[in-house]
Amino acid sequence: MHSFRNDYSEGAHPRILQALIDTNLEQDNGYGEDRYTNEAIELIKMTMKNNTVDIHLLSGGTQTNLIAISAFLRPHEAVIAASTSHILTHEAGAIEATGHKILSIFTDNGKISAKSIIEMVNAHTDEHMVKPALVYLSQSTEVGSIYSKAELIAIRKVCDSHQLLLYIDGARLGSALCAFENDVNLTDLSELTDAFYIGGTKNGALLGEALIIVNTGLKKDFRFHLKQKGALLAKGRLLGIQFRELFKDHLFFELAKHANLMAQRLQDGLVKEGFRFMTHSPTNQLFPVLPNELIHILQKNFSFYIWTQLDEKHSIIRLVTSWATTDQHITDFLDAIKKR
Amino acid sequence: MHSFRNDYSEGAHPRILQALIDTNLEQDNGYGEDRYTNEAIELIKMTMKNNTVDIHLLSGGTQTNLIAISAFLRPHEAVIAASTSHILTHEAGAIEATGHKILSIFTDNGKISAKSIIEMVNAHTDEHMVKPALVYLSQSTEVGSIYSKAELIAIRKVCDSHQLLLYIDGARLGSALCAFENDVNLTDLSELTDAFYIGGTKNGALLGEALIIVNTGLKKDFRFHLKQKGALLAKGRLLGIQFRELFKDHLFFELAKHANLMAQRLQDGLVKEGFRFMTHSPTNQLFPVLPNELIHILQKNFSFYIWTQLDEKHSIIRLVTSWATTDQHITDFLDAIKKR
Amino acid sequence: MHSFRNDYSEGAHPRILQALIDTNLEQDNGYGEDRYTNEAIELIKMTMKNNTVDIHLLSGGTQTNLIAISAFLRPHEAVIAASTSHILTHEAGAIEATGHKILSIFTDNGKISAKSIIEMVNAHTDEHMVKPALVYLSQSTEVGSIYSKAELIAIRKVCDSHQLLLYIDGARLGSALCAFENDVNLTDLSELTDAFYIGGTKNGALLGEALIIVNTGLKKDFRFHLKQKGALLAKGRLLGIQFRELFKDHLFFELAKHANLMAQRLQDGLVKEGFRFMTHSPTNQLFPVLPNELIHILQKNFSFYIWTQLDEKHSIIRLVTSWATTDQHITDFLDAIKKR
Amino acid sequence: MHSFRNDYSEGAHPRILQALIDTNLEQDNGYGEDRYTNEAIELIKMTMKNNTVDIHLLSGGTQTNLIAISAFLRPHEAVIAASTSHILTHEAGAIEATGHKILSIFTDNGKISAKSIIEMVNAHTDEHMVKPALVYLSQSTEVGSIYSKAELIAIRKVCDSHQLLLYIDGARLGSALCAFENDVNLTDLSELTDAFYIGGTKNGALLGEALIIVNTGLKKDFRFHLKQKGALLAKGRLLGIQFRELFKDHLFFELAKHANLMAQRLQDGLVKEGFRFMTHSPTNQLFPVLPNELIHILQKNFSFYIWTQLDEKHSIIRLVTSWATTDQHITDFLDAIKKR
Repeated sequence: MHSFRNDYSEGAHPRILQALIDTNLEQDNGYGEDRYTNEAIELIKMTMKNNTVDIHLLSGGTQTNLIAISAFLRPHEAVIAASTSHILTHEAGAIEATGHKILSIFTDNGKISAKSIIEMVNAHTDEHMVKPALVYLSQSTEVGSIYSKAELIAIRKVCDSHQLLLYIDGARLGSALCAFENDVNLTDLSELTDAFYIGGTKNGALLGEALIIVNTGLKKDFRFHLKQKGALLAKGRLLGIQFRELFKDHLFFELAKHANLMAQRLQDGLVKEGFRFMTHSPTNQLFPVLPNELIHILQKNFSFYIWTQLDEKHSIIRLVTSWATTDQHITDFLDAIKKR
Repeated sequence: MHSFRNDYSEGAHPRILQALIDTNLEQDNGYGEDRYTNEAIELIKMTMKNNTVDIHLLSGGTQTNLIAISAFLRPHEAVIAASTSHILTHEAGAIEATGHKILSIFTDNGKISAKSIIEMVNAHTDEHMVKPALVYLSQSTEVGSIYSKAELIAIRKVCDSHQLLLYIDGARLGSALCAFENDVNLTDLSELTDAFYIGGTKNGALLGEALIIVNTGLKKDFRFHLKQKGALLAKGRLLGIQFRELFKDHLFFELAKHANLMAQRLQDGLVKEGFRFMTHSPTNQLFPVLPNELIHILQKNFSFYIWTQLDEKHSIIRLVTSWATTDQHITDFLDAIKKR
Repeated sequence: MHSFRNDYSEGAHPRILQALIDTNLEQDNGYGEDRYTNEAIELIKMTMKNNTVDIHLLSGGTQTNLIAISAFLRPHEAVIAASTSHILTHEAGAIEATGHKILSIFTDNGKISAKSIIEMVNAHTDEHMVKPALVYLSQSTEVGSIYSKAELIAIRKVCDSHQLLLYIDGARLGSALCAFENDVNLTDLSELTDAFYIGGTKNGALLGEALIIVNTGLKKDFRFHLKQKGALLAKGRLLGIQFRELFKDHLFFELAKHANLMAQRLQDGLVKEGFRFMTHSPTNQLFPVLPNELIHILQKNFSFYIWTQLDEKHSIIRLVTSWATTDQHITDFLDAIKKR
Repeated sequence: MHSFRNDYSEGAHPRILQALIDTNLEQDNGYGEDRYTNEAIELIKMTMKNNTVDIHLLSGGTQTNLIAISAFLRPHEAVIAASTSHILTHEAGAIEATGHKILSIFTDNGKISAKSIIEMVNAHTDEHMVKPALVYLSQSTEVGSIYSKAELIAIRKVCDSHQLLLYIDGARLGSALCAFENDVNLTDLSELTDAFYIGGTKNGALLGEALIIVNTGLKKDFRFHLKQKGALLAKGRLLGIQFRELFKDHLFFELAKHANLMAQRLQDGLVKEGFRFMTHSPTNQLFPVLPNELIHILQKNFSFYIWTQLDEKHSIIRLVTSWATTDQHITDFLDAIKKR
């Protein structure tokens, strides 16, 4: 039985395991001050053609979000985020646990607009309410969509005119960057945001997210926050070795491209069979609408997440591809659909 | 140049890397609900001959301490800890960041006594002060010493009579359990404490600590706290595979014994050369007092931490051994001493 | 110019000031352990015919809400509240600042139903989300409406079946209890809730809210929370003297009845003039829909809050009456309306 | 029986009650935006001859400390304070509850030196420890002593050279400012500190502390913090009216002078009888060493706090005078001593 439940069902890309083996008995400094981490950071900077950013390697998305946001904000400041956003719905209140309210903007395609951000800011008029101070976006979003460069520029302008920080959750940034219709690159992100992170866990690493701090004012003392929240791994090399491998020879992008290609084949096959989708997704998450009967049949041989029940006879499922998805997995799934 | 700076300078024991390779392409559930984690937990329970505990796998010591303590305490409750304790001095205020004061008991050997705990509790008389509610011990301590079973039983009694939880930081528990003079085993800990953790990072794992929750009242909803604080790894299998390997065939204990043996050889050699130590340590951390001149000579070929300056001519250094320390490393170091 | 902006525009009812004068030079204990506070608490218990509750006197509504809720909940637990609720919109993120998310249920009449609470609980399925643990209601609500006894009983049942605490914000409880159509009394509240508070500030006191803790499990150590959050006034007598006066000879209820009567006259007058209201309010807050032109005229002689713009020509205003509102104030306002 | 337990055993100075009565039925804005508060702030600024500060009126000392410190610091930053300091020992962990560690410097006279602050800063070397960022002093201290201008200037210099904020808790600032040997005035404090507060509660008010923010960088958005922590009283006028009265015609200083005079008489009498004191106090708190037998006799007619047991036969007691202490109270107490 193959699982399309997510992009973290396997271990790591074999090159990453090999790198761990190759470096295993070399001694180095703890807590992310080792040569591998330094090399990884330099490689990422070179890849994004921006040498002015600060980069820190962390273990997971929730950890990265909560540390970055709590380090960036003062106690009375709040986050603006989409109603679908991971921090709002699927991080067990991690942001609120650091003291900050999340203001939700309703969306059905995972994205929020520059205009809706202005409206939210304007609705907060005085000290009896929180003060919106940071816009959180996900790229790709939790429902597979991506922001265009024009959309990000428009949001950046609003952030500038309303004293808002712009932070992007890149748990699946690789897939977004490698989408056919994408027009945003890492250099753009390092110019348009105040901070963002590049997800490793969902793109071939055992664990690891690279937080990029662009805004100089946010860089100071950041390692204190990592330590205080339990994110400074004694063997920080574990993260450094992986990101060094991912950003050497463009492995990061190859893996994301592969995941997208597998998703594209899946999407094409489903479209051909006449199915529609909850959202337009050019990335590695697809949300097809399927008859419940078909879902029951598929569940015998495939594992996936039932996103939501649409009506009595139909549900939306989530199918996720990854670096580890093979052509055969896609073929098998589409065959099972065709046989219905 | 060999480093005796700490027990996390290398990667992982080769068997752990091999286990990662062997399981790499198997698909499994995320967030610690995979078969490897389940097997690891069962193996740990069998080893401690206690099937009633709850076990969670986390990434590091600071993370484990802050999540456990903040989950266990109500907002007004405080921790009692030794003046040398890691949570007090070397976790960047992680516990206070969750809202809880740490009450410090002065010690020069890393340990606190049952009597000193009673005095601290009695000094807190009303709601104008915090309420002491949890005793934090480290085993082995930050200066290499260990608590005897009699000492732990005495502290447990005080905890019972004063409504205190007993929590043990086991970052270096392996070394403590395998010390020649140790008389405490895992079963004892699972009966004497309310919770404790078994450190993997400093005993051969890439990362990983196993939190054992003994007290039934502390078990409920614990995974919410893991998620909220960013500790629930998407690929939780990474922790499960490692602890499964460590507790299969007693690898965990073999590695700790080896580290202790190396420390013992080092200690014997230093004693033979006439040096004394800051504390009595039967574990893998030694704190010899050395002349500054000798320290300068040693630093040319060895790396270690200068703990504190004792007087104008002497300093205390810290030497740490691990699963990766070899006989040759010890011989080389002692030879360098003899040649002085 | 008379202000209908709120029910805290003046000082205190003269009897309260007189009581402060009468007791001024008597020495007594600090921090709420004085005879006046004790007497006030006894009078409140007698009034609610319930001797089993714990009562604490605090300074304001936001303070009471944040201390109670943060004392009652564990870190991962969340609050369910109406979209109109004060804690969600007008307390500057005070609840989130203590670490807890508020889950919002949309309402346009200030009230939430038992059914909507069940739906919210059911939508929270695992540890990736917060755990709903406390239902927050306001009585009267922020838009003047009140819950009937049947509605409260239905919500209580849901709370029981879903392990939820029920907490009622009674900033304007006096007005609710004295509404003509009200069928809930203090005794009911002390049986149906886990905790609630009786607002003094908006019903004739200089400041002061009486928190009633019904649930035995929530009583322990509560004064620690008061102290830790800065709510334990050195001269706690200031609160005790006021509540003693309010609950002696039913002053509390007389003042609330007067405020309601004034609101009723205002409402009758506005209805007679053909105006409609945003919500049905039997309490001291009215939300009439008025033409913008009329609003501009009224603003010359009266002060009030413009709640929201309804359309290009109409807005909803908020008119609040209090113990200090006189017949003449009402007559003047209605005359100004009639003259339009 | 007269109580010397503290300076908050009575209500308020009669002029303050009269001011409440005189303004009672005037309507004004809520939340500290009323004319009385504005006038009070202007009077305080005039008195301190400094028009550049921001002033906020709060309800109590713990509340003021926790709001100021949590608003001023980032999450990883810590407070340096004396081992005797109120925030360390008698505020129920209020500062830690906002996430910040307090680093304690041992003292037996209530004061810390510039040198000891430097040592504490130097002991904090990296991100594994908290970052000292704010020095907290009390003036007068918790044991009655005061800092001289030279001492404050020396501490200010250390703060400047080590990027530390200087904050002074002035719960009993009036008594300090009016001590015979004092050489510090409000203008000095508004130049030497980053923020401090002027205590009203312990100098004749019902409640109230005036927080003075000197450092421009700390002023922004401060009212959000007041609201978020529950300190923005709906009837903020209650604080404004009191501080307006205290700073009109120098009432604040008259009351403090009176308290000091009473303490001086008490001290002179005790010295004449041959008793010594725990600390040198020129302010309204005295700590005489008395035989336990005498203490028992005195307790029959006077109430006071037993500070600590010195040896088997002697204890230190605390005697506090206030605006409400009369010559007769002092005479009676000294007579009781003489009669022993």
